[in-house]
Amino acid sequence: MAYYRQHYFFCTNQRAEGAERPSCAQCDSGRLRAYFKARVKELGLHLGPERVRINSAGCLDRCEEGPCLVVYPEGVWYTYVDEADLDEILESHLIRGEVVERLRLPDGVEEST
Amino acid sequence: MAYYRQHYFFCTNQRAEGAERPSCAQCDSGRLRAYFKARVKELGLHLGPERVRINSAGCLDRCEEGPCLVVYPEGVWYTYVDEADLDEILESHLIRGEVVERLRLPDGVEEST
Repeated sequence: MAYYRQHYFFCTNQRAEGAERPSCAQCDSGRLRAYFKARVKELGLHLGPERVRINSAGCLDRCEEGPCLVVYPEGVWYTYVDEADLDEILESHLIRGEVVERLRLPDGVEEST
Repeated sequence: MAYYRQHYFFCTNQRAEGAERPSCAQCDSGRLRAYFKARVKELGLHLGPERVRINSAGCLDRCEEGPCLVVYPEGVWYTYVDEADLDEILESHLIRGEVVERLRLPDGVEEST
């Protein structure tokens, strides 16, 4: 059995002001990650052998598509804008195991041609 | 194809001085993560469709077993003490796909009985 059934990583990277690329922290990813983690704790989903873990992470390098998070071991990537999006990810992906297609980011690396 | 072939998360959590639990940052995990990331870049392993990503993360909650890192999508956990350990993980796990058993942390959550 995996140590965590699902492991969520929220990019909370903050670039310096004036940087060329956007950063997830500009989209309030730190606060929204804390919201998601608090919801998981309220529901007791961080406990027991089926437990999940919600972490912050450094730059996941999908800045232009962000704010972003990734769920492992599935390797499913999401974007989100607010608490309602995170509630949907929690209720669908985390609890029922169903991917939220409308928030999903593409898997494949786009090759420059 | 997965966005990253392998995705490494190093716990770089720093607790306040005097905290009851140890923290990975006390074991120089920030510097060692930077070493690992630099080696990956030197070898060009961060590029192309088979690329890997090396991130820092908040507390992974295996403090007493740390410093720790986790590799996804495999869900393999490691501890390490120095650059030599990370070189072995890079050469064995990252390049050859062979788990380094001597550094591996257990998968299962120990149940209190």
